[in-house]
Amino acid sequence: MIESMLFDLTCTFRLSKPEGVEDIVRRFVERVNRTILIRGAPKGRELEAARIVDWKAKGSELSFHIRSGTYVRAHVAALRVRKALSDTLGRELRIGIRGISVDYYAVTLILDREVPEDVGPKLAALSKVLRAAVRGNEVHLLFEPLSFHELRANVPDRVIGIVQEIIAKLLRPPRVVSKRLPVIRQSPPKALPFGDDPARVAIELGWIKEFPGRGQWVYTTPYAKLFYVIRDILLSEVAHKLGFEPFLLPKLIPLEVMRSMGYLDSIPEGMYYVCPPPREPEAFKTFKETIRMTREIPLDDLKRTIKSPSYVLAPAQCEPFWQFFAKEVVDAEALPIKLYDHSGWTYRWEGGGVEGIVRLQEFHRIELAYLGLPEQVVETRDAVVDELVNVVDRIVDLEWRITIARPFYVAEEEGPEEDIPSAYDIEIYLPYRGPRDKSEWLEVAGCFVHRRKYVDSFKIKERKGREIWTGCAGLGLSRFVAAFLAEYGLDPGDWPRSIARRYGKVPRLPRLLLWPSGVHVEEKEKTEEDQG
Amino acid sequence: MIESMLFDLTCTFRLSKPEGVEDIVRRFVERVNRTILIRGAPKGRELEAARIVDWKAKGSELSFHIRSGTYVRAHVAALRVRKALSDTLGRELRIGIRGISVDYYAVTLILDREVPEDVGPKLAALSKVLRAAVRGNEVHLLFEPLSFHELRANVPDRVIGIVQEIIAKLLRPPRVVSKRLPVIRQSPPKALPFGDDPARVAIELGWIKEFPGRGQWVYTTPYAKLFYVIRDILLSEVAHKLGFEPFLLPKLIPLEVMRSMGYLDSIPEGMYYVCPPPREPEAFKTFKETIRMTREIPLDDLKRTIKSPSYVLAPAQCEPFWQFFAKEVVDAEALPIKLYDHSGWTYRWEGGGVEGIVRLQEFHRIELAYLGLPEQVVETRDAVVDELVNVVDRIVDLEWRITIARPFYVAEEEGPEEDIPSAYDIEIYLPYRGPRDKSEWLEVAGCFVHRRKYVDSFKIKERKGREIWTGCAGLGLSRFVAAFLAEYGLDPGDWPRSIARRYGKVPRLPRLLLWPSGVHVEEKEKTEEDQG
Repeated sequence: MIESMLFDLTCTFRLSKPEGVEDIVRRFVERVNRTILIRGAPKGRELEAARIVDWKAKGSELSFHIRSGTYVRAHVAALRVRKALSDTLGRELRIGIRGISVDYYAVTLILDREVPEDVGPKLAALSKVLRAAVRGNEVHLLFEPLSFHELRANVPDRVIGIVQEIIAKLLRPPRVVSKRLPVIRQSPPKALPFGDDPARVAIELGWIKEFPGRGQWVYTTPYAKLFYVIRDILLSEVAHKLGFEPFLLPKLIPLEVMRSMGYLDSIPEGMYYVCPPPREPEAFKTFKETIRMTREIPLDDLKRTIKSPSYVLAPAQCEPFWQFFAKEVVDAEALPIKLYDHSGWTYRWEGGGVEGIVRLQEFHRIELAYLGLPEQVVETRDAVVDELVNVVDRIVDLEWRITIARPFYVAEEEGPEEDIPSAYDIEIYLPYRGPRDKSEWLEVAGCFVHRRKYVDSFKIKERKGREIWTGCAGLGLSRFVAAFLAEYGLDPGDWPRSIARRYGKVPRLPRLLLWPSGVHVEEKEKTEEDQG
Repeated sequence: MIESMLFDLTCTFRLSKPEGVEDIVRRFVERVNRTILIRGAPKGRELEAARIVDWKAKGSELSFHIRSGTYVRAHVAALRVRKALSDTLGRELRIGIRGISVDYYAVTLILDREVPEDVGPKLAALSKVLRAAVRGNEVHLLFEPLSFHELRANVPDRVIGIVQEIIAKLLRPPRVVSKRLPVIRQSPPKALPFGDDPARVAIELGWIKEFPGRGQWVYTTPYAKLFYVIRDILLSEVAHKLGFEPFLLPKLIPLEVMRSMGYLDSIPEGMYYVCPPPREPEAFKTFKETIRMTREIPLDDLKRTIKSPSYVLAPAQCEPFWQFFAKEVVDAEALPIKLYDHSGWTYRWEGGGVEGIVRLQEFHRIELAYLGLPEQVVETRDAVVDELVNVVDRIVDLEWRITIARPFYVAEEEGPEEDIPSAYDIEIYLPYRGPRDKSEWLEVAGCFVHRRKYVDSFKIKERKGREIWTGCAGLGLSRFVAAFLAEYGLDPGDWPRSIARRYGKVPRLPRLLLWPSGVHVEEKEKTEEDQG
């Protein structure tokens, strides 16, 4: 019935002395996020445990913002933090903890089916519950402020137990069996100023212009500037921060490499095929003459003249990484290896249809690839997810969630339960597609553990035959830009400060008489000034 | 007989007061480079006139380094500078000029045929000539220091006249009629520490690794780092300095766009063709089954299944710029428009053969495009050439020359004489290919004026029907990197300081047991330290 639970808590510790604790707390947070806050979560599901996402020291008060998924609930995490913090501050600074209070505690239960609206008032009436709300298949609870004793007495778990009983009694039968995989973390709803299709507005204002290829655009300077701002954030806050180093990878991939990737016998309908010209330039004689005489391109003649397809345009971007390691011998002592590429466009043929600037056939991605012992690969993947959450939540400030996904090569029956998920997707809410609980969110990043798949198919060896895995994470740069524009629109005056500051002014477009159709922000401002 | 002449001069002015003249001289240099130093050169050939490339003020001495091509010889330029400088300093600072001396004056005559070696000693014996040398089809003269009176008495021109007479008498008949177009400017020979094929050494040290596609490589971190250093220099010192702004352009170009570019009926043999998958995924049924059963890729089946080619991979990179302006109306008052793209790989099929890292089929380029009145387009193109010379000569420190080139769409009989050249190429000397005068240099940038070609074929209009032109310049980033490595090798200890400082340490490679074959610089250093 309940697929997953999300916890979001802020607690404050009163310290015995108002002394400078910043450096110690910074190291403390890094340590506990890697240790006591994930202890007890099943192996491979550490992302669904707890994490301090922010903290603040002010005078003798020290606050922590803790988020968790199903496994180490945030209030349990708060108790663990109290114990460890008390040890650390006592030992290093002779500072004691005088009190702890939970100022804010919100819980979201995500169910496998829709919850009746009338559950809400029943839950709101419960003791210790300040507010309760139902939204589609989600139940939201906000606790009253809790004391240390209430935490220790396990009040939150007892309330959640009662909530589950109430819901169970009133629950409707599941509608269609959900194809969607579980949400394991998500941001609170954010106030989003924009509700339009960003492609429509981008065309009007000239940030993009139609190009006569399906799922392609010409992106002009105002778009390009935002693209580079977000690229730089993803590079510094994810790739470089986690020690990934740059390669420059081919984007024209020989068919043999694609066969090893497993794409040719599973999704050949999703790729563009590339054919070299014939060896003898004379073969084009008739072709050239026809064009000169008729101005028409003789397509059948062209198809006959060129060679058979030898390549596809890179759909995955990581293909050349595995080809790079093919038949090579690695040394477990020198792992993990962490590399990235962002040297050019990649391509997918979207049979199901393209959509504005969010579902494209030609798009930019920062591709991270990692190779290591199984636990290193899982750790690296999880660290990428954590840093991506930091970026979407705190820098680009989007409304996000993480779902467990299933790559095309993982059969459905393998299911992710109680095992290391093969893929986490970072998804962003697109207001123009409809309400949060009814519309499809946009996947902006997929973070994978391939297990032995590419190690086997590319024959990558370890010196002593030890088990090695690979993984990759595609950070969909074009989609990050689209998601940002879908939530905040095209006027930097409406953007989060972190992005508006990096972006600066909207650059001027080339001045054409019949383009673009809309009014530029810049000109609008000028007009307003004139009137003011 | 003489195709072109190059002049390289340093002169020093003694001023009446040792006062701070820097600001005034900086503006003075910018002004005279655009005005009196190109006056008298035929329209469109201003790049073959004179230019102050450097200057220095120290105490009461002010030195200028002047280079010129055939049209405003550097010693004539020095006299013009003296007159203008005297006016400017007198008016603005009440400073007079007490004297002028020419400390260094080197002249290169480039002939259409080889010059006999024994011409050298005859020229060296001339009065006022300090040294003379012959190299292939070039004659080099170095003058003794010259006084102001000797300049005014036109000593250099008289000596050059005598030199021409001597050469004419002794000259051999031309060998094969040269296909090469004239060199109009070039750097002095530089001391280059490397003579090997950079691709061979890059493979040994693991900076690149073979990839199973013709003319493609996987580029590893040490290469990528250099690539980004040179990219940043070209962006800041050429693109941004000259006011170009970024677009992000498609690299998958519909055939109709290529027809308008004029490529399909002239060089169809130089491109890769791209075919979409069929509309119905089921069409791949047999294809998938065959691969699953046989592990072989049935190419004929694939060629039958996919659709006819609809695209090529961008060979020119500027195609979408002209498509962007197609049928649009510009306003001459809002010109020129200056844009660039460096969003991904571009592609050429090299029928004549690929070569290491210098002639590739998949490569990176920064593409500058400009649209304006004819004189704006020529001015912009010439400014790009000037800034590129600044980059290759003073920052990347390569041995370079500029030649007049001819794009594929300009017929040979149109010849460039007495007209605005359609293209200037920046070429770099590659020591591993052989002696300077016998080997082919590497084109790293081509800077074009298209005249009305794309304005007509893409039907770009001006509001009042005024004449507009386009032009583009391809800065071959992959070739810049290759040329640099060919002249300086792969050990930053041997590099010019300007690049070594930006580059820092060679990054560590992923550690594999059987790759790369050579010893890393890093490890070599360590070994040397151990022994020291």
